[in-house]
Amino acid sequence: MKVTIVSIGDELLIGQTVNTNASWLGKELSSLGVRIQEVLTISDDPLQILRAIENTESDLIIATGGLGPTKDDRTKKVLAQYFEMPLVLHEPTLKHIEAFFSHRKRPMLQANIEQAHLPEGCEILPNAWGTATGMWFHREDLSVISLPGVPYEMKGIFTEEILPRIKERYSLNALFHRTVVTQGLGESFLAERLADWEESLEQLNLSLAYLPAPGIVKLRISSFRGAEDESLIEGKIQELHSLIPNLIVGYEEDTIAGVVGKMLSHMQATLGTVESCTAGNIASKMVEIPGSSDYFRGSLITYQTALKTALLDIPEAFIEQYDVVSEEVALRMAEEGRKRLKTDYCLSTTGIMGPSRGDSKDEIGTVWIGIAGPSGVSAKRFSFGDIRSRNIEMATLVALNLLRLSMMGSKIERLG
Amino acid sequence: MKVTIVSIGDELLIGQTVNTNASWLGKELSSLGVRIQEVLTISDDPLQILRAIENTESDLIIATGGLGPTKDDRTKKVLAQYFEMPLVLHEPTLKHIEAFFSHRKRPMLQANIEQAHLPEGCEILPNAWGTATGMWFHREDLSVISLPGVPYEMKGIFTEEILPRIKERYSLNALFHRTVVTQGLGESFLAERLADWEESLEQLNLSLAYLPAPGIVKLRISSFRGAEDESLIEGKIQELHSLIPNLIVGYEEDTIAGVVGKMLSHMQATLGTVESCTAGNIASKMVEIPGSSDYFRGSLITYQTALKTALLDIPEAFIEQYDVVSEEVALRMAEEGRKRLKTDYCLSTTGIMGPSRGDSKDEIGTVWIGIAGPSGVSAKRFSFGDIRSRNIEMATLVALNLLRLSMMGSKIERLG
Repeated sequence: MKVTIVSIGDELLIGQTVNTNASWLGKELSSLGVRIQEVLTISDDPLQILRAIENTESDLIIATGGLGPTKDDRTKKVLAQYFEMPLVLHEPTLKHIEAFFSHRKRPMLQANIEQAHLPEGCEILPNAWGTATGMWFHREDLSVISLPGVPYEMKGIFTEEILPRIKERYSLNALFHRTVVTQGLGESFLAERLADWEESLEQLNLSLAYLPAPGIVKLRISSFRGAEDESLIEGKIQELHSLIPNLIVGYEEDTIAGVVGKMLSHMQATLGTVESCTAGNIASKMVEIPGSSDYFRGSLITYQTALKTALLDIPEAFIEQYDVVSEEVALRMAEEGRKRLKTDYCLSTTGIMGPSRGDSKDEIGTVWIGIAGPSGVSAKRFSFGDIRSRNIEMATLVALNLLRLSMMGSKIERLG
Repeated sequence: MKVTIVSIGDELLIGQTVNTNASWLGKELSSLGVRIQEVLTISDDPLQILRAIENTESDLIIATGGLGPTKDDRTKKVLAQYFEMPLVLHEPTLKHIEAFFSHRKRPMLQANIEQAHLPEGCEILPNAWGTATGMWFHREDLSVISLPGVPYEMKGIFTEEILPRIKERYSLNALFHRTVVTQGLGESFLAERLADWEESLEQLNLSLAYLPAPGIVKLRISSFRGAEDESLIEGKIQELHSLIPNLIVGYEEDTIAGVVGKMLSHMQATLGTVESCTAGNIASKMVEIPGSSDYFRGSLITYQTALKTALLDIPEAFIEQYDVVSEEVALRMAEEGRKRLKTDYCLSTTGIMGPSRGDSKDEIGTVWIGIAGPSGVSAKRFSFGDIRSRNIEMATLVALNLLRLSMMGSKIERLG
């Protein structure tokens, strides 16, 4: 079974919106064993929508977008015409839309009433999260599912209405993936280090992909024979553990913040941060994870130099003497933070993110990261680059990875 | 002139990576007046790459991905075969790759040397940011540009090598867009309020698109007649200012953090935050903007309830009495933060992001946002929803918008 995802909307083509819907659907479908043939992003234009349907080589098209209440939303009309189904008022949908607005104590608009007119004969996929109903059009050779483009509505309908029916209606050849998340070595160096191991995968008919992202390289091992290869792949991952023990951060969707959170939780330890150049980015990454209030206490964001004195009592003369971006200041920040936030661990960052140099004499891209923990305090210097947003991201990832390595040192164990 | 963007990589199809390259290219190209026909995301598979080239209706294909040093990167070979150009060692590229590694004090690998073998006869687009060279293949009816998938390398080559040549080689019918960023009213309500205005746009042959994102609706006005409609569109935007004066946050790529930053800078005022449930997300949004150290001082992230007492001296009994998520606590947080951070304005957040309820008795999704400023302190209650990440994002956007409205109150003026 092959699926084409069609993402409809000028805002996607002209780059005003990033196509996160397609990646979410891709993830969900491929984990079911559905093969994504392609993702096609097109304009809100009836001719383009028709061309996408007519040219497809897939069995199922999942289209998102163009179902809103405004005049630039054309998908429903195009599909109704293509499948020759008149638009008729669908009473249960109208009731739902009425309830939706009365619950929010807002008036219902004419445009919303029109959203209850649906193609007669399509399978209706209720939208509990909004007013644009999903639709499933059936024909022997081709099915088309149309969903709203608002991500949480699309996700809700997909999860509740579509996912169980795909499992029921299609017999799927499970594609089996396992992904190992690594941090600390670039793609080429990792590939060189893993050359023999990679060859051994090929001999087992397993395929390997390197997925680099700033600071991280994911290794994805795939089998088209499905879950029967699971133990084979597990064995190869065990080998990887002896080849690059410190570089493996986690698996699948693991993030460094999530892994650090699990370790802290497991060790019943607490974390705080004193951030200058990352300005709360480490804290907010930690808090994205549900339950983080068990181990993450809080932070002092001493972005301006004067706050390093006001909040941490680091004397002006000390900062003057060593430079605000220095090992000495990073160490003091981590130590003072650990005391004031009363945590087991405290990360500190001080650096120059660019484009201007700020209060430091060092080069743009320089970041000192400090860690204070039960066994003492240390700091390390990094040189990232010229791009501000990338520097912030890299400093955040690297700081959390230093904490991970430091915690592993104090209590080494396998994290699953 | 029509362009198809082809994004190559299984990681995009299975949703492991979000296709930000396509949106970036879409933005760049459409601002040049190039029409993006479609974005096609396909597998790292030679047959799929060939099919994309053979089926295109565009004049130019810009392909990204599949140029890395590892074995799963196949684009270069496929294109060399399709255009019948043998791969030969390109000396300047080899020198560049050697310099790239020696500068980083890292050994060069065999796989990197192979990256210097390029199709003979294609136009070579040097990559100053990495080791995968860009290539431009020319044929009368169709050109294909191949770029690496690593975003900053792709962006670097596009900006330095491709953009100036596209301007030179193609005569472009400028597509003219103007986008107004609004915050504070949902899509349907905005559309109802703007119905007459929207109709007046249609009469002028201008098209309008509503681009909703969490907390924000962008209004994009487009003309296919190019910049000659600029003053016409400007006039319609002026009308919009009288229709929805407080809802307009900015224009084009403006973010609420950027707009707030500009206002603070203009007023020579400073900002700090005391964040609980947003845990540094407001601070890190402010600091994404270059130059933010002029007005953003820092934050106290009192994520755990105990830190609200330890760092802000809000008595435990006070928090107990009113609930940690309450107007009283939000007000105290903002006031205490303003004092301790010595800022003109201080934002505070305290809320329950879910999935668990934490220390509060209120409902999941409840957030109190406080603002302390020169003219006093106030707080407002919001009910967002069940999704943790969305609640954090919404609270951040709404807090910054409250600050914007509050600053407008103290000194009302047009922001450009």
